[in-house]
This record gives sequence, C-alpha cells and structure tokens, in this order.
Amino acid sequence: MDRGFASDNCSGALPEVLRAIETAARGHQPSYGDDAYTRRAVGEFRAIFGQQVEVFLVYNGTGANLLGISAVARPHHAVICAETAHLHVDECGAVERFTGCKVLTVPTFDGKLEPNFIRNHLRGFGDQHHVQPRLISISQPTELGTVYSPAEIKAICDLAHAHGMLVHVDGARLANAVAYLGVAPAAITGDAGVDVLSFGGTKNGMVFGEAVLFFDPAMAAEVRFARKQMTQLHSKSRFIAAQFSALLENDLWLRAAGHANEMARLLAREAARVPGVTITQEVQANEVFAIIPREVIEPLRELCFFHVWDENASEARWVCSFDTTEEDVIDFTSSLRSLVD
Amino acid sequence: MDRGFASDNCSGALPEVLRAIETAARGHQPSYGDDAYTRRAVGEFRAIFGQQVEVFLVYNGTGANLLGISAVARPHHAVICAETAHLHVDECGAVERFTGCKVLTVPTFDGKLEPNFIRNHLRGFGDQHHVQPRLISISQPTELGTVYSPAEIKAICDLAHAHGMLVHVDGARLANAVAYLGVAPAAITGDAGVDVLSFGGTKNGMVFGEAVLFFDPAMAAEVRFARKQMTQLHSKSRFIAAQFSALLENDLWLRAAGHANEMARLLAREAARVPGVTITQEVQANEVFAIIPREVIEPLRELCFFHVWDENASEARWVCSFDTTEEDVIDFTSSLRSLVD
Amino acid sequence: MDRGFASDNCSGALPEVLRAIETAARGHQPSYGDDAYTRRAVGEFRAIFGQQVEVFLVYNGTGANLLGISAVARPHHAVICAETAHLHVDECGAVERFTGCKVLTVPTFDGKLEPNFIRNHLRGFGDQHHVQPRLISISQPTELGTVYSPAEIKAICDLAHAHGMLVHVDGARLANAVAYLGVAPAAITGDAGVDVLSFGGTKNGMVFGEAVLFFDPAMAAEVRFARKQMTQLHSKSRFIAAQFSALLENDLWLRAAGHANEMARLLAREAARVPGVTITQEVQANEVFAIIPREVIEPLRELCFFHVWDENASEARWVCSFDTTEEDVIDFTSSLRSLVD
Amino acid sequence: MDRGFASDNCSGALPEVLRAIETAARGHQPSYGDDAYTRRAVGEFRAIFGQQVEVFLVYNGTGANLLGISAVARPHHAVICAETAHLHVDECGAVERFTGCKVLTVPTFDGKLEPNFIRNHLRGFGDQHHVQPRLISISQPTELGTVYSPAEIKAICDLAHAHGMLVHVDGARLANAVAYLGVAPAAITGDAGVDVLSFGGTKNGMVFGEAVLFFDPAMAAEVRFARKQMTQLHSKSRFIAAQFSALLENDLWLRAAGHANEMARLLAREAARVPGVTITQEVQANEVFAIIPREVIEPLRELCFFHVWDENASEARWVCSFDTTEEDVIDFTSSLRSLVD
Repeated sequence: MDRGFASDNCSGALPEVLRAIETAARGHQPSYGDDAYTRRAVGEFRAIFGQQVEVFLVYNGTGANLLGISAVARPHHAVICAETAHLHVDECGAVERFTGCKVLTVPTFDGKLEPNFIRNHLRGFGDQHHVQPRLISISQPTELGTVYSPAEIKAICDLAHAHGMLVHVDGARLANAVAYLGVAPAAITGDAGVDVLSFGGTKNGMVFGEAVLFFDPAMAAEVRFARKQMTQLHSKSRFIAAQFSALLENDLWLRAAGHANEMARLLAREAARVPGVTITQEVQANEVFAIIPREVIEPLRELCFFHVWDENASEARWVCSFDTTEEDVIDFTSSLRSLVD
Repeated sequence: MDRGFASDNCSGALPEVLRAIETAARGHQPSYGDDAYTRRAVGEFRAIFGQQVEVFLVYNGTGANLLGISAVARPHHAVICAETAHLHVDECGAVERFTGCKVLTVPTFDGKLEPNFIRNHLRGFGDQHHVQPRLISISQPTELGTVYSPAEIKAICDLAHAHGMLVHVDGARLANAVAYLGVAPAAITGDAGVDVLSFGGTKNGMVFGEAVLFFDPAMAAEVRFARKQMTQLHSKSRFIAAQFSALLENDLWLRAAGHANEMARLLAREAARVPGVTITQEVQANEVFAIIPREVIEPLRELCFFHVWDENASEARWVCSFDTTEEDVIDFTSSLRSLVD
Repeated sequence: MDRGFASDNCSGALPEVLRAIETAARGHQPSYGDDAYTRRAVGEFRAIFGQQVEVFLVYNGTGANLLGISAVARPHHAVICAETAHLHVDECGAVERFTGCKVLTVPTFDGKLEPNFIRNHLRGFGDQHHVQPRLISISQPTELGTVYSPAEIKAICDLAHAHGMLVHVDGARLANAVAYLGVAPAAITGDAGVDVLSFGGTKNGMVFGEAVLFFDPAMAAEVRFARKQMTQLHSKSRFIAAQFSALLENDLWLRAAGHANEMARLLAREAARVPGVTITQEVQANEVFAIIPREVIEPLRELCFFHVWDENASEARWVCSFDTTEEDVIDFTSSLRSLVD
Repeated sequence: MDRGFASDNCSGALPEVLRAIETAARGHQPSYGDDAYTRRAVGEFRAIFGQQVEVFLVYNGTGANLLGISAVARPHHAVICAETAHLHVDECGAVERFTGCKVLTVPTFDGKLEPNFIRNHLRGFGDQHHVQPRLISISQPTELGTVYSPAEIKAICDLAHAHGMLVHVDGARLANAVAYLGVAPAAITGDAGVDVLSFGGTKNGMVFGEAVLFFDPAMAAEVRFARKQMTQLHSKSRFIAAQFSALLENDLWLRAAGHANEMARLLAREAARVPGVTITQEVQANEVFAIIPREVIEPLRELCFFHVWDENASEARWVCSFDTTEEDVIDFTSSLRSLVD
C-alpha cells in the first residue's frame, strides 16, 4: 500500500505546503525569524488565537513541549500529565533532562485528565522536600484520540489557577480537536484559560515545523534565548513560517484535519463490522483503537504496518492522515476482514 | 537587492533540493529514520566519508554540535575551542547547558587553533578540582573564513589523541573547506584523525538539515537516544535525507560551495580596489572580512544588510552563497565605491 | 520531652562520634580526602564490604544517592523505584535535575519492590523514543521500616542484571537492616549483587556524613570528579572519616542501630495495647507505623511532634533513634493511652 | 610539622566550635532548619548584615556559590568573573553543569576585577544568539589574597546594576577581608550593593558549614527548594548553626581571621628577607605569594607541603590559618632560608 495507518507522521506533505516552500525559496531573507514570512505567520496565529499571543516557531513537537514548559517551570517544579502523555512516554525523558522537573503521572481511562485524579498530586506546596506542582499538561486531542470539550479544559485550567499553577496543552494534533469540536480555536485554548500551547504542523501536512504560543506575553519574555539555546531556532525561519501560512490561510489546517477525522470515523465503522473487532475508544479525532483477533495482527501488519498499542489486549492503533483516502480505508478493512475469515 | 551578503543562511534553497522535497512528499514512509530515503542518504555519506561512519540526521547546526559533543563528553569534561567558535559565541550557551561541560577558549589570529595555544589548557588531568580536558573542537572553515590544511588538522588530532582526548569538527560549512582544498572529504576528517563531525546542509542550499558523523562507531552506540531526547530527531526524516541525497549526488554540494567561494574571491578582489578598504583575512572559503571607512557602513547596510564584525576596527563581514551572482558582487562593490567616493 | 519520635535525624550525635571529631581536630591534615583519617575509614569500609569496594565520603543522603546514580546512569536512562522511595518523594526532584534520568515508580504494599511489579517497566529497550531502564533502586530498610531479606535482594539483582541493568541501594539506614537481619553486611549488598550503595551515617548518630560504595571499581573511575562537581566533596574530609571510624570500629554502628530497632519493637508492642491503635507494618527496623484515633493525633503531636504518614487513614509514623530510651517509649505510649481514654 | 601552609582548609577546628557541636548534640531538635539553633544563627547573621537578609546554611563553598548563583541566574545567562576565580578554576565546572550558565572570564593582575576589564563582556544584551550577562562574581578576598575596598566593590555593583545585572561575592574567606579592612561587614556587602554572598565558615575554623545570604529577600523566595534539590540541606541543621553562632558571637570570626592575616604578614616579612625570595602580591588577607628559588621548592614541600601557584614563575602560595603560630612561621622561613643557603 502506498499509504498506511501507522501514524500521521508517516504521511508526506500537502501540495499547498510544498508550493509555499518553493515560493519562499526565492531570494534572500533575514535569518533567525526577522523575515517577512515569519512576521506574516505570527500575524495569522494572532488572528486566530488572539492579538496578545506570543508565537515561537520551532522544529518539532518535543522541542515545542520543552520550550513551553521550560519557560514557566523551574527545576524544582513538577509537571502533572496523563500516564499516556507523549511528553512522558515518547520523548525519551526530555522534560526531566532539560527542565529538571519531575513528571507526575495520572492514570486515565481515555487519555483525558480529570480534576479528581489530578488532585492526588496537588500537595506538598511549600514543603522544601517535595517538588512543587507547577504545570498541568494535557494533550488535545489525547494520545487515545479523544477530545476535551471546552468545559473540560476550563475545569482543568480553573483547578490549576486556583493552586497558582499553569496549564500547558500539547497540541501536536490540535487541528484535529478543533475540527472535531467545531469551535473557535481560542475556545479550547486562551479563552478556556490555557497558558501555553504546542501547536502542531508536521502531523497535519507540513514538511517540518511546530509553534509554541504563550497566551500571557509576560511568560514569553525570555523565550527567544531559550529557543536558541535549546536548538529549536531555525536560521531559515521563513521556511517554517511559509508552511504555516499555507496551512492557516483559508482554513486548510482545519480541512486537512477534518478529513483525517472523517477517515478515522469511516475506518472505525468499517472495522467494527468485522467479526472479532471491538473499537475501544470513542473516535473523535483521527485515531482508531481496536481490539482485533490476535492471529491477524502480524499478517495485517505485513500488508500495512501499524503499532500494537496494548500487546496483552491485542489492541491496535490506526491513525488517519490528511491524505488518507476512502479507498485506503476500504482496502485496509477488507484485508482485515479477509484475514479474520 | 534581492540577494545580499549578510549570511549564507539568508539564502533560500537549491532547485535540486526543492525538487527532492517534492518527490519525497509522495506516499507514506516509516517515520523517525526507518525510511528508504534515510537509508540512501546514510549510504551516500558512507561512500564519501568511509563505510564505518555512523550518521545521524538532525535539524540544525547547534543541534549537531550538541549531539556530537554530548556523545563523547561527560559533565566534568572541558571542550577547548577558538574564542571565535560558533559553539562558544553564537549558541547562547547551549554546550554548557546541555552537556554540562566547561568551554575553554583560545585566542587566535585567524580563527584557527594551533597546538601551541591549545597546550595552555592541557593541564589538570586527574585533578578532581579541575574540569578534565576531553575534546578539541575546531571549525572548518573557521568563523573567519580560513581553512585548515589536512596537515594542520592532523597535528591537532595527534595532540588530542596523545592526551587521551578527541577532536570535534564544526563543519557547518565543511563543503566550502573541501571545495577550497580540493581534497577528498575524508582527508580532512576521518583520515586526519577527526572523531566527530557536524556536517552542514542548511547554509549550502538546503531548506533545513544537518548531519552528525562519528568516525568510530563505538562512540555512537547511544546517540539515537540522545538525538531524540535533545529534540533533534525529525519524525519525517525522509525530508532531511532527500535533501542530502540531492546535495551529495553528483557533487552538487561541492559545486554549490565552490561557487560561493569563487564569488567571495571576486568580492574581495573588487572590494580591495576601493580606496580605504582592506581585506583582513585570507579569503579561502565563502567569507570576506574587510575594514571599510566607518562612515560608509550604515549607508551600505541600508542598501544591503551585513554584519559588522568588529565595531572598533570598522571591520565588516560579507558572506557569499550558492546563489550569489557576479552581478550581485559587482552591484555591491559599486555601491561601496560610490559611497566611498 | 527531650527526645521524640519524629525522625532519627532529629537526634543529636553519639558520644564516640563527638570524641572522634574532637580528636581529629588537632593539627593540620591534607584536605579533600588525601588525609590519614580518610584512608583509615576507607580501609574499615573495605574490611566490612570487601577489599575491592571503592568508597566516597559525602555530606548527606541526597548527595550520596545522586552521586551513586549519576556514576552509572546517562540522561536517557530511567531509574525504577518504589513510589515511596526517598529519592522519588523526598529529594525535591534531585535525581531528575542532576542526572537527567526519568524516575519510574512501582506501587508497593510495604515499601518493598518485587520482581513482578518491576517487570512492568522493563520494556522499551532499544527504542529511541523511550527512556532506557538502567537502574533499580531499593531502600534498605524501606521507608516503611521493612527489611529485604538477602534472597529478596538477590532476586532483584538477578532480574536487573538479566536485563543489563544495575542495582542501587539507598542505605540511609542500612545499619538498621543489618542489625535486624543479623547477617554480614556483604550478604545484603555486594554478595547479593548490589552494584552501588548509599551508606548512611547521619541518622545513626553522626553529626554529618554518608558514604557511597561501588562494588565494581570500574564504575567508580570518574566519580571523584562528579563528587567535586556535585558539591559533595568536603575539604576537611578527616571529619567525616573520623566519625565513620568511630562508628565502624567495634560494631558501634550495629549496636546503635540495633538499639533503635529494639526501641521500635517496644514502642509497637506498647502502642498496640492501646485501644484503637493498629500497627500497620511489620516492625523490622526502627520505624513504627500505626493507625491511631484521629482525635488524638493533634494533642499527641503537641506533646511530642511526629509525622502523619497518611492523613486519610489517620496513620502515624514514629521513628526510634540510637538515643531513644525505654522511658521515652513508656512516657510516649502512656501519653497516647491517656489521650485515648 | 604539625601545621603547615598548604591551605586554611588543612587546619582543624576552633575549640569554641568543637564545644558548640558538643553542646548542640544533646537531645532532639526539629530537623532541616526548623530548630532553635538555626533560628539563633540566622538572627546573628541579620544582626551583622542587616535585618532584611535571608540566610541559608549549606555544607560547603561550592554548594554556597551554586545556590546563590542558581537563585538569580537562568540557563541562558552568563556569569562574569576573574580568570582566577575559584568558581571557574576549582569547582570542576559546577556552575556550568548545575546552572547551565556560561562563565566568562576576565584576566587580572591581582585577582581583582576592574570595571574596565568587565566592560568587554557587557554586550550582546537582547541578542538571542548570545548568553545574557547577568551576574558579576567577585571573590573577597581574591584567590590572590588581595582585598577589594568598599569603594571598589561599590563601583562594580554600580556597573552591574546599571546594566540590569547583579553582583555575587564568593566570601569563602570574607572574615579575612573584613578583618583586614576593619570596616563593618555590611560596608563591603549589602551597603555596597552586593546582592548575594557566600559566607565561609570551614576555612575559618569550622568543622563544616557555609552560608548563603541574599540581601534582597525577593531573590530568595524559592531558594529553600533549590537548596534541598542541590543536596545542600543538612538534616541536622543545628550542627552548622551552632558552629556559626560560636564564630559570630563576640567576634570570634574576626579574631580568628585577623590572626591568620597577621601570621601571613609575618610570613611575608620573614620570607622576604631570604635571598632570592620575592613577594608577588600585596599581603592583605591570609595568603602569601612568593617567587622562590626553583631548586628549593621540592625540598621545602617535603618538609611542609604547599601548592606551587605558577610553575613557570617558580611562585609558591602559602596560606595561614586561625591556628598558625609565630613559631610555625619562624620554623618554616628558617627552613626556607636553610635550603636557600
């Protein structure tokens, strides 16, 4: 198969993004973010998220998370997140190494933090022996493809702020959440009380590039130094900026993500009709989690690679992308059905 | 002016590089370096630098330097470099923060370390109070546009190895050095005794991307973890790899760099003919350093921005790129002449 | 009350220790560990733990843990420990900040890690996205006053070594474990497969001072630099050394700890006879955990401060010291009884 | 010889300090600084340095420097100091590793920073590529035994504050400077504009212990967490506190240091009378630097060990202590004379 369901970062790039890179390649531009393309992209982010927002373009999601967290956390602080959080599970300990913070995890059913589970970690304030809870980090959508509602996010932000803490959103796939909810992007970020946002581009059709948004400019005062020191400042910033402009203009980011979401729903629907297949998480964004017969896992992966999420449960994770087609889905679920039969 | 002389990272990208990105954008590929493009690029690096070389693709030069240094240095080690070294002056303290190492600097006339100056720092071995000298880092070409000969590099490597130390080369512009010297790339790296190399792509016409090469595979055993943790692993690795393949095939990297070098020589020649202009460093790679009349600096920068290298000396730095044209040079030096007159 | 049950670090110092400091204060000695007292103390440690052991004197337990862990772990590694472990709960995130490692915790009933619970974390080996499990750290005795048997420690060491991992023991109260078990100290450390040991002095009657022991000298090759860099090298090393000699000679360390253990058993026995009091952990070392009537907690703490271990369960922690007397225990449990009545 | 001139940290401890430890050893006290002894010592520091001062007791000088610097510097900051500064030369790179800051050094003749030399590093403010100058650190007295006057310190503080920077004083031997100058301690610290002070105890007759003083309490708001995390919080804090009280009461600290200073002056005077001996630095505190005939270095060191400061210049460093006697000085200089003859 030309396209699979292993991850949205296995996809290539949107044609509009490629054209933007080609156009931006002409002539010389000031480097390190002082160029016209970067100014324009920052303006587009502000048009969407609020004029007060400070925007920093970076290379990748781990870099975005680190930069955002390091700006507001000191080494004796703790970051609270779901035990499935990408920053806990999939970033090789980057948060601990580069911010010095301890990561405190909360078990969840569906990847979503809930205030009641968080409260367990809201202690030790002022005690010099204990790390000081400083930041709640949520993934929107979660690593399980579920999406926080605006009210759920607001509840977490209120809890955090009531304890003098802040909220970080890992939005590597934020577009998928916004497309699912059909709300204004600000409604699940700044307006809900979010302080820092990692905004994803790579998984949504860019060649490379993410952004970090600070909703309170005071928090961002020294971030440009940290971005450079943390190796996340691109000299040819125009190339990240131009891609973001291509995405943000005319809502391409939401159409691309909405399409991926739609394909995930189709995939879940088709797969659920195969005997022995159970969809385990509500499909809200672009990911499908499904228990499938153990014996079909390997043959199906050979046809089209994907990740086994939970070996014991025989649970697979399938991810749809901006370029996934209905035909891809039908081919894949047909293969699944054939193997099961 | 459409193109200037501020820095080679103000240039856009080579057409071959843009085509490579577009081609690589098709279909899905395994992520995080397990794709066919990455395998091919690694093979091309090995064909040039030696089959034993371990290659890691990263985003940028600061990341490349950090990854290479962190692989071979522990926090109580010291890195010795020229006081003009990019890793000392222009990376916002990244080496100290992320490796924990102390950076010990050596004054130079032309950006080149010499064994005699290095020796001053080769002491305190075994003394628990002192950082332990571990790594000599040189820039090839230097930040002053000068180029080490193979013999000069070998002398530094011999000195390092005689003290149980290693040698790192910051080769953000290595192509310009190889093009100038006309030697095999291995002659100034692995064959001369170099242990770790940052190999630049961005300044030589790529949209983004650098590589770290380890000449002793044993040193690279745990680097893949460090690359991830240090935020330098690109999920869509194919896009860095495809650009490198475009550069390395058919010696495009050397032709692009050689052209930039040639333009720098032309620029130096033309500028030197302007009254009151003195070229201060031998032009070997793609940079020109020139003392110019103090009163022309600002008007010339307004026409075409460049960096003032030494305010006190009224010394400018001009950098040529793969896309600099003879006309660009003539226009610029004509402007200079007009302002002087 | 002149002495309480809040913690053994609320006690003062053994008379023998004070005399040792006074004696060591005479005349000049080489600093930073090159003195006769340090050599002698190292020799005494070797006589007890094995001639191959490398010994480093440090200031405190957090420093000892950090030094031991940092010697064998790189920043992309993970340390596995009980969720009650001092290094996780009570060191303000020191491990994360100074080693860069992620701390992975295991829930326990009695503070003791069991191979079955550890196995959950023994995955992701070789996966660049995941921290690499490197070290299992156990506390002996545990923070719940329970003691691992030699066989239990060996089982953990075997598990670790089978996965290419190492074992660290936080022995801030190791003396209490040895005294309880009545075995040779090597039987629960080097002979059982332990790689690195934090050996406590402060809680067992010293004014200050702990030691880090490496059972494989190869692991200790660069530790002297790390000790200095991590602020744990005392210039007047003789004063830590002399105290350790006072402890280690004639088994004073075991007698002092054995006495504290005995007082804890007495305290548990007496407290258990008070209506409404339940001892919650087997009393093996010098700590007693007891559920007591909620309404007596505050009045009892006012008489004699102690820590509430679990607010919800109304569970108290009482710790006995080298200087706890039978009278102290009887006075305290009488007060408890009076308050309950 | 029973006492030598290698360093003041080769000395033992003052009798008053030993008695204070013994007295403090009685009974139980709250741990981690909540005890009566610590409260009293803090009060004594405030009586001397100002009521607003925040005081943190720590183990050693490297820990004191790190704690003070880390409280006011972020990882992208730079610390400016003399190239002879202990924190640059003798702490195995602790500042770089634990604060992330770059250390920028200034050459000096006599160990003293001068505003004119500092200015060279006061640039790059606001430039994201450059570390941001944040802190000027001076040693008082310097590592060359010279002492800044109140006016000299004020000039450095004024320069720092004019650039939005702060001033740190490494006062491992501050007592010797105060005793030499005969001024109020505040005159060369808080009143002169100093922001953070490492105050030494160990070299002036304590068994162990230093203090960090913040003259602006706002800077100290989170220091108690950092002290714990950085392994510098002593559980039995009373023992550091009681020693400081013994020193600070009745000016013992100034008498002890004044005596050491006096012995250094005698030593310099006597040594200067030996043919071929040249005193190279003005003797203000308790250190003497002297060029001596190269051939007597080794035999003299065998009689009584000391450090060779500059091998090339045949320059020795001799340090006097609180317990150095006139007889010690006469014996030593007589030996020197005998060897020269």
